[in-house]
Amino acid sequence: MVIVVTGIPGTGKTTVCNEVLKLAEQKRKKIHVVNYGSIMVELSRKRGKNLHRDELRGSEVAFQRNLQAEAAEIISKKIGGADEDLIVDTHMVIKTGSGYLAGLPFHVLQVVNPDMFVLVEAEPHEVLSRRFRDKTRKRDKVLEDDIIEETLFSRIMANACAVLTGASVKIVRNPTGKQIAAAEEVLKFLV
Amino acid sequence: MVIVVTGIPGTGKTTVCNEVLKLAEQKRKKIHVVNYGSIMVELSRKRGKNLHRDELRGSEVAFQRNLQAEAAEIISKKIGGADEDLIVDTHMVIKTGSGYLAGLPFHVLQVVNPDMFVLVEAEPHEVLSRRFRDKTRKRDKVLEDDIIEETLFSRIMANACAVLTGASVKIVRNPTGKQIAAAEEVLKFLV
Amino acid sequence: MVIVVTGIPGTGKTTVCNEVLKLAEQKRKKIHVVNYGSIMVELSRKRGKNLHRDELRGSEVAFQRNLQAEAAEIISKKIGGADEDLIVDTHMVIKTGSGYLAGLPFHVLQVVNPDMFVLVEAEPHEVLSRRFRDKTRKRDKVLEDDIIEETLFSRIMANACAVLTGASVKIVRNPTGKQIAAAEEVLKFLV
Repeated sequence: MVIVVTGIPGTGKTTVCNEVLKLAEQKRKKIHVVNYGSIMVELSRKRGKNLHRDELRGSEVAFQRNLQAEAAEIISKKIGGADEDLIVDTHMVIKTGSGYLAGLPFHVLQVVNPDMFVLVEAEPHEVLSRRFRDKTRKRDKVLEDDIIEETLFSRIMANACAVLTGASVKIVRNPTGKQIAAAEEVLKFLV
Repeated sequence: MVIVVTGIPGTGKTTVCNEVLKLAEQKRKKIHVVNYGSIMVELSRKRGKNLHRDELRGSEVAFQRNLQAEAAEIISKKIGGADEDLIVDTHMVIKTGSGYLAGLPFHVLQVVNPDMFVLVEAEPHEVLSRRFRDKTRKRDKVLEDDIIEETLFSRIMANACAVLTGASVKIVRNPTGKQIAAAEEVLKFLV
Repeated sequence: MVIVVTGIPGTGKTTVCNEVLKLAEQKRKKIHVVNYGSIMVELSRKRGKNLHRDELRGSEVAFQRNLQAEAAEIISKKIGGADEDLIVDTHMVIKTGSGYLAGLPFHVLQVVNPDMFVLVEAEPHEVLSRRFRDKTRKRDKVLEDDIIEETLFSRIMANACAVLTGASVKIVRNPTGKQIAAAEEVLKFLV
């Protein structure tokens, strides 16, 4: 199975992926985890360019789109047999200066062909404290509204991906201190 | 025309479809109603398997997807001429243990080719009393939030289907006791 | 670049497009603006038909869909070189008597191939006063709820378009009196 694990920054998505990997090792399950962003950064370095996401102009958008497509090809080669699971750690939506970009546009979906989309979610105030590494200060309502918008856009894009592919959308809540429970929820669906 | 009538369990979708059929007979309109789920259940029985939707694993997901595709082919053969209407009674979204599944993924849409998606909706507390056949007990806020999420996901998937096909999305409210009015709203769009 | 500027009626979308054009002229940037709806109206006139959107029946839906496709072809011929920008002034969602229609269904997206979707948004009460050209009367909650639904459906369709094309979705707020600031936000992304 190919399971795409997504979450907006601060939801603890990568932490959950790492816990899944640990639990899978304990249970001697064969799992691979790849990070979409890392593959894109590596590819852009090879081309002597930095990957940046603020106010992308035409040529940069085209460059990013090509990287996304190349990264999808690299990932598709890591897909194993029916008894192996591949977790793709990525974003459903990427907030840039030019607006929200789909982390998994149609051309990527056709190559990666996922069986399930996991949306790791957390409460807006938790997302904000994780982003700013500060658990006491009271947060701005504006910032919370931004998190709510980003979460909604992730859900919308996930559902569009579900219609395109037939794969399911699973919401996994990841409140503070519960990353192992969240990881176990993901692990349940693996082979 | 091909009209897909959807609604989460408890919205009274099938009741509305039955009323549409009755009203159409009174007006001597030619209408066929097919139930997507029933066709899938029949197909799975022929293969000696039960259709279940809890915590689908890889092979089960593949099995379901194949049934969905076969059911779409069967339905497409029931599509009549320009003066006949076909109502497909189905779900926009199916809540399973593995997350939300699209009732009408792209490969199904391409075969069924609908002209309109009807979303039968009801208030969360009405959906809950219909699901639990009890109209007095006060419902849990958690349960209501689940209904709100399911309703949102149905709307999102319907809009994704609208972008893919160019067909329209019509919301039809079905409050208690108003199923005939709801049916008349659907009937208006038939040939 | 091809930038699609959308907004529900009353958000001030066309005003923003006009301001973009003015600002671009001042800065001697080469920009073309086309209005999707006007092209469709012209095409329907040539066929001796009126374009209307209330309770579209089967044949009318087919007629509209063909116009949409033809208009897309006309627009695609206006797309210039890499140093030119084309703004397509249109709707993400069209509210008709038969439900919500996608302004940019998949077959149109494949022809127009946009790089960015701009959603011009305004507060529900501002949208209502612009629609009814009256800034004092208190508005109905029902009407406000309709605006909220239309705005949500626009966002959902925009995200579905983003998944299909890989283009970004940019929300541009257009509060009363701020159309120049809104236009400058759009202009930033042009070549």
